[in-house]
Amino acid sequence: MPRSCVLLLSGGLDSTTLLAHVTQQGYAVNALTFRYGQRHEMEIERARRIAEHYAVARHVVTEIDLRLFGGSALTGDEAVPKGRGAAAIAQGIPVTYVPARNTIFLSFALAWAEALGAFEIFIGVNALDYSGYPDCRPEYIRAFEALANLATRAAVERAGRFAIRAPLMDFGKRQIIELGRSLGVDYGMTLSCYDPALDGTACGACDACALRRRGFSEAGAVDPQVYAQ
Amino acid sequence: MPRSCVLLLSGGLDSTTLLAHVTQQGYAVNALTFRYGQRHEMEIERARRIAEHYAVARHVVTEIDLRLFGGSALTGDEAVPKGRGAAAIAQGIPVTYVPARNTIFLSFALAWAEALGAFEIFIGVNALDYSGYPDCRPEYIRAFEALANLATRAAVERAGRFAIRAPLMDFGKRQIIELGRSLGVDYGMTLSCYDPALDGTACGACDACALRRRGFSEAGAVDPQVYAQ
Repeated sequence: MPRSCVLLLSGGLDSTTLLAHVTQQGYAVNALTFRYGQRHEMEIERARRIAEHYAVARHVVTEIDLRLFGGSALTGDEAVPKGRGAAAIAQGIPVTYVPARNTIFLSFALAWAEALGAFEIFIGVNALDYSGYPDCRPEYIRAFEALANLATRAAVERAGRFAIRAPLMDFGKRQIIELGRSLGVDYGMTLSCYDPALDGTACGACDACALRRRGFSEAGAVDPQVYAQ
Repeated sequence: MPRSCVLLLSGGLDSTTLLAHVTQQGYAVNALTFRYGQRHEMEIERARRIAEHYAVARHVVTEIDLRLFGGSALTGDEAVPKGRGAAAIAQGIPVTYVPARNTIFLSFALAWAEALGAFEIFIGVNALDYSGYPDCRPEYIRAFEALANLATRAAVERAGRFAIRAPLMDFGKRQIIELGRSLGVDYGMTLSCYDPALDGTACGACDACALRRRGFSEAGAVDPQVYAQ
């Protein structure tokens, strides 16, 4: 029987590459997607198609309302910044930071993993491009892993030890795209833009678009995404 | 200006006593209640009335669907055990354990605290009666506090240091009830039962009822709760 894992799937470039990688390693994947008051539903639709494409064991889309708390451009409180260069993106924590988002995502993943009897949780964070996001750093991932092994019945009863796996942690966008291409990922399925048009056209100017375009360019690959500019 | 905090409010005996305590200390309280696929909505209604009674700064009720994951009597997967004595309750982790529940609750509380600019989070856990619940132990609370101080922009930018406060940690039910009575808590507002009737009558036989009744008895106080048996 294949090993089971829970994988956080947003429908973006990173988590899709991660899914391809984990599938290729032979895991039975339980994919978890959040509808959390993002600006658009398109991300969810992409995640569904991607989960289907990779024939995951189960895909759960769960709704949480982070708009109640506010404090982020991604939940509609501030404008998404456009036209920033790589240097500006690498500096400080952007307004697209959502308070405690990865902590919330990982805690749901932990609940599901425990209920399934799975002990591995995969998350597509990478510290290189967004050094500013506090909950994408290796020390954060280690702290959550320590917490998981105190928080749960499964850990206390020594049924196993939870591992939070972030294999893309030290990868830049270029390396992630190279890995994905070696695994045959169709990046036309993915959506990275923070502010896409209703037809799926990416804005081309937000931080996520900028990093994605630079990644494809550095990898010498064609980005199938259509951009507005 | 009073210090702000976020407080997890279930509408039960512990979190209501905690709210009375924190209010008396002069905090501006932001109370957070979860609708999480419990067996009954009554808990939510009680939490609303209690929040109103204590004139909290803000009360947010947020919905999360823990039924998706299963694995607990409190979300309807198994029968709530009845008629267990104190010794049986103290032993092992009961089926009313909900996978990673406090981790999910605290991660939402952290998101809200960060958005508010508050750094104190209050939770009514106590390790004495339920030694079996892994996410009620002091080492778990410390691990979440460490995580909070890595996870957030507020912590990275040194705006403050998050504290997870569990002042009832070392209290038994008797002491909690004594504290609440000294603060004038009307325990008729609270509901502890895991399996109440629609009119709010408590079953009198689940672990929560058993612990509550013993607590009132030991405190030499009258429990205003109506019990079916």
